[in-house]
Amino acid sequence: MQRRIVVIPGDGIGKEIIEATLPILTKAAKTHGLNLGYTTCLAGGAAIDAYGEPLPQATLDAARQADAVLLGAVGGPKWDSVRPELRPEKAILGLRKELGLFANLRPVKVSPIIAPYSSLKPEVVTGVDILIVRELTGGVYFGQRQEAAEVDGIVSAWDMEVYSQPEVERIVKVACQAAQGRKGKVTSVDKANVLATSRLWRKTATETAAGFPEVALSHMYVDNCAMQLVLAPKSFDVIVTSNLFGDILTDEAAVLTGSIGMLPSASLGQGTGLYEPIHGSAPDIAGQGIANPVGTILSAAMLLRYSLGADAAAEAIENAVQAVLEDGYRNADLYRPGMTKVSTSEMAGLILAKL
Amino acid sequence: MQRRIVVIPGDGIGKEIIEATLPILTKAAKTHGLNLGYTTCLAGGAAIDAYGEPLPQATLDAARQADAVLLGAVGGPKWDSVRPELRPEKAILGLRKELGLFANLRPVKVSPIIAPYSSLKPEVVTGVDILIVRELTGGVYFGQRQEAAEVDGIVSAWDMEVYSQPEVERIVKVACQAAQGRKGKVTSVDKANVLATSRLWRKTATETAAGFPEVALSHMYVDNCAMQLVLAPKSFDVIVTSNLFGDILTDEAAVLTGSIGMLPSASLGQGTGLYEPIHGSAPDIAGQGIANPVGTILSAAMLLRYSLGADAAAEAIENAVQAVLEDGYRNADLYRPGMTKVSTSEMAGLILAKL
Ligand SMILES: CC(C)[C@H](C(=O)O)[C@@H](O)C(=O)O
Ligand SMILES: CC(C)[C@H](C(=O)O)[C@@H](O)C(=O)O
Repeated sequence: MQRRIVVIPGDGIGKEIIEATLPILTKAAKTHGLNLGYTTCLAGGAAIDAYGEPLPQATLDAARQADAVLLGAVGGPKWDSVRPELRPEKAILGLRKELGLFANLRPVKVSPIIAPYSSLKPEVVTGVDILIVRELTGGVYFGQRQEAAEVDGIVSAWDMEVYSQPEVERIVKVACQAAQGRKGKVTSVDKANVLATSRLWRKTATETAAGFPEVALSHMYVDNCAMQLVLAPKSFDVIVTSNLFGDILTDEAAVLTGSIGMLPSASLGQGTGLYEPIHGSAPDIAGQGIANPVGTILSAAMLLRYSLGADAAAEAIENAVQAVLEDGYRNADLYRPGMTKVSTSEMAGLILAKL
Repeated sequence: MQRRIVVIPGDGIGKEIIEATLPILTKAAKTHGLNLGYTTCLAGGAAIDAYGEPLPQATLDAARQADAVLLGAVGGPKWDSVRPELRPEKAILGLRKELGLFANLRPVKVSPIIAPYSSLKPEVVTGVDILIVRELTGGVYFGQRQEAAEVDGIVSAWDMEVYSQPEVERIVKVACQAAQGRKGKVTSVDKANVLATSRLWRKTATETAAGFPEVALSHMYVDNCAMQLVLAPKSFDVIVTSNLFGDILTDEAAVLTGSIGMLPSASLGQGTGLYEPIHGSAPDIAGQGIANPVGTILSAAMLLRYSLGADAAAEAIENAVQAVLEDGYRNADLYRPGMTKVSTSEMAGLILAKL
């Protein structure tokens, strides 16, 4: 049986990092008995250019029917001035909502090899191994909002943060399940001293985690978490938080590694999962063959693990990446004297050869 | 004429750091021709214990009539389980709202003396000089909210983020004015790719900054800002942002220094200004004479500068602090072998002697 993967290269460096990744995904899958078929679809700026909309129905339909979606990156200055409803980000938000991708998983691991790239001291970051579980289809991202409007002579706008008990429960479950296969620690992050949604979040998290006796749940305010991520990142195992707080904290945690080019992500729901590197479309370096494909390659590994149940294939890719880095090969973003600088496709070729 | 200062020691270490600070404030003021009178008031846990409410009317009335308020810190585990409306935080939020303290100013400076304490590499943080201007009386902190309630069998809660054009305008003005006396750069932080309030914020910031031709305004998404603060903190001059984003980013920026015990803050509006260290009440070390009073002492300097127009007196305190640190004196939180460990009151005494 063939497993269907929808591939969305997107914009900027999206095309080249996806191209670099597919042979690796194919080979790792095949070695473990999986046969993959790819359908390439447009989304983001490329779709705006072709169809006048960031998320064409055809892309959405294909994604719904696929086993998984692998996405490069979307957006770029070219589409910055289009109408808000047509911005490339709408493709991302639309895919999340339409595919019901309520759980965004972002692992942040700092091996001794990448520790030197961090702006933090090596002893603070070496060994960091955090999994951030961000709620992805609720909160202020998808609540009602009012664009600027004049009432009694004063222009104002509002956005509503909303969470229901079932929404919180299912995301905390994901975090607790993940923690079971890790160090068993979940930190639930909220702002319960101010927000009603956070008080519901905290209560629900406590109730949900009670169903996982092996998991130790603690609560932390988001401002404190923003501090602790810098002060003591090694103290975290799994972090679970709302959509908006997750947006901020995942990015903060990502740069602890000093190299967002290497970080993957998975967005999961009931059906199709979506996998993408955490970095953007980097239009400034697009088409030069210098982009780092590792974030996308590791996203492909997550795809194998979470959407195809092929843990061994995922690990094979992760080990191959690690081995190539140990051999001293680096893309331009991580190049330092004494190492071997390689292009996007060369890096992919080296990883492929290790498989 | 006597200038009236309301002093709120609060809870935990609040009492000892305030006690340590007052003689310094008095002397710096006097040297520069100012005569200060102090009224001590209760707020936070201490007020809950004495009057059953975190912010007694008497405290509020005294604060309204004063030239400035100097606050230690409020809160502690003892009051963690009281009803939400009675939590010590309500004192802070109540003072901000009732005194109209819409502008929270948090300077984050990393001198070569404190750079080694940072979890970031010295070359990344030495020379950091950021002023964060946080909007303090609007946004989701003071919008409508709904505590968890069941509708059609599903429990949910919501909070509303609201901003009006005049609210954004006045805080951006504060940021632009501050930038004029600094490097002339303002970074306005929002989430305009998602939030309607952020789109109003961005538009208003652009319009307001147009009135300051010497100031260069740029916009940054909050997730990107959370990254850049770790990657390249020296690239910032003034940051202006909403109440919630400011809560997170000020704390993240604070720990770049590795020592939140040393950081002051000012909260300003039309009338009385409020000054407090950014750290909490640290109940675990209260009463032992080991708390670092420098954050409070530097808050007193901000009080002299912003509420009493006594710039020279403020600088005198700041220079005295710097001199004592250069002499190698440290409180327990920053003590390292080779330095001289001093108590809360000893540190204050040394600073007083330098004035
Ligand atoms: C592009 C944007 C809408 C998106 C978000 O805020 O979720 C991005 O920052 C992310 O984290 O995936
Ligand atoms: C105590 C709390 C309500 C407060 C806030 O969120 O504003 C605090 O974190 C702060 O930053 O002063």
